[in-house]
Amino acid sequence: MELKVYCDRMSQPSRAILIFCKANNAEFEEITVEIGKGQHRTPEFAEVNPMKQVPAVIHGDFKLFESHAILIYLASTIPGVADHWYPADVRERAKVHSVLDWHHTNLRRGSELRCVSRKGLAMVVESHVYRFGYLFNTVFAVVFGMPGDPKAAAEGEKLLSASLARIESLWLQGGPFLLGNSKPTIADLALACEVTQLEVADQNGHDRIMKPHTKIVKWIKDVKSATAPHFEEIHAAIRSAREPLKKLKAQAAHKSE
Amino acid sequence: MELKVYCDRMSQPSRAILIFCKANNAEFEEITVEIGKGQHRTPEFAEVNPMKQVPAVIHGDFKLFESHAILIYLASTIPGVADHWYPADVRERAKVHSVLDWHHTNLRRGSELRCVSRKGLAMVVESHVYRFGYLFNTVFAVVFGMPGDPKAAAEGEKLLSASLARIESLWLQGGPFLLGNSKPTIADLALACEVTQLEVADQNGHDRIMKPHTKIVKWIKDVKSATAPHFEEIHAAIRSAREPLKKLKAQAAHKSE
Repeated sequence: MELKVYCDRMSQPSRAILIFCKANNAEFEEITVEIGKGQHRTPEFAEVNPMKQVPAVIHGDFKLFESHAILIYLASTIPGVADHWYPADVRERAKVHSVLDWHHTNLRRGSELRCVSRKGLAMVVESHVYRFGYLFNTVFAVVFGMPGDPKAAAEGEKLLSASLARIESLWLQGGPFLLGNSKPTIADLALACEVTQLEVADQNGHDRIMKPHTKIVKWIKDVKSATAPHFEEIHAAIRSAREPLKKLKAQAAHKSE
Repeated sequence: MELKVYCDRMSQPSRAILIFCKANNAEFEEITVEIGKGQHRTPEFAEVNPMKQVPAVIHGDFKLFESHAILIYLASTIPGVADHWYPADVRERAKVHSVLDWHHTNLRRGSELRCVSRKGLAMVVESHVYRFGYLFNTVFAVVFGMPGDPKAAAEGEKLLSASLARIESLWLQGGPFLLGNSKPTIADLALACEVTQLEVADQNGHDRIMKPHTKIVKWIKDVKSATAPHFEEIHAAIRSAREPLKKLKAQAAHKSE
């Protein structure tokens, strides 16, 4: 039964799903829905996902959206997925759910929403892809023809850093992966793809934010190794977006002079 | 094995868990952690949940936080829980996960976060209990000694209404419960307890917001019936908070004159 994955590699939950599929040798078709071009807003895509967001999947006649729900579904249906991704043990599984829920209400939210303007916020929520307040104000605001807010960016950076510290102190104890595990779960993929979104920022910004978080840096490296070569391959998209974004930013600065 | 539920009935995810436990005849101890008194911030409670949020559970030697993760865990471990609450069928289950994730990223977030001041926002996120922008600005701001923002409240109301309309058009089709089901899932409980938080507002505000959403009103009624008498009993707490909140608001208005 054919699995179709509707996604945009610029979106971190899209990447998590693509990496999961590839790391588990799933047979699937990747269908790119470019958010930057508004392809998620078409009536055709509303037939796939009425929420008009990526990622979404169609598996035979079954349609599903929300990335965590998709990861769980795929871990439960792709043949031969190893137990460590989504453990059958009820307590181990509960801990994975807890991290995924925390991701929704903290890392993603705390770092994305607090620090953008109201207009920006509406767009952030609407697009569901430009996650970080820090990123929004340093990189993406310009794409929407909005001024970035340096104060908001600084505040966003501080909050983001606090979330990263929380992950380190709470979940990166006793093992290379989250929850002290020796192998990754779907929660590692979801959170790692969120953190790597920072790579869209300029190298300096990325390095400054990551510098104190040595455990996070090692963890990302371990997630990359555990899913090689797919993590790197799928993330190439965000790195190649850096230059065009830099140009857009320069053009906007030129206009406002 | 003893189940301890740490909660505050003023918190909607706490209520969802309490109702679930009672509706499924779980043996458990309810341990009240009063957020209004800062009891979730004590070192003792940090031993229960390092995130210092309610709800949290301890089941034997197993500790868990995040309300959706807890609902899933309880549905999987409380003896005799009927399948409809958290279906074993992988697709039915996936749909429940999808609604729960949507709740995290839309109803809860959209209605709570967009419309409060930055200072208020920090508190909202921190406390994880005062969910609605509308509610925050009409009711809770005063408790924190902050002025409510009528414009933000109006904007919050609009957004909240859009989320309710989305639930109606997408999930309340073809059956009394979410996803067109004939019996409730844990997602019904989670979302219904979010919506009923509005009852903390004055009756007029509640009625105005709910008026166009006849399907939501019927659905809440059906959730109440399906879990009677527990839904009503657990929600008595928020209704009894109305008067003290009204007094606080009046005192604050008097001071600012």
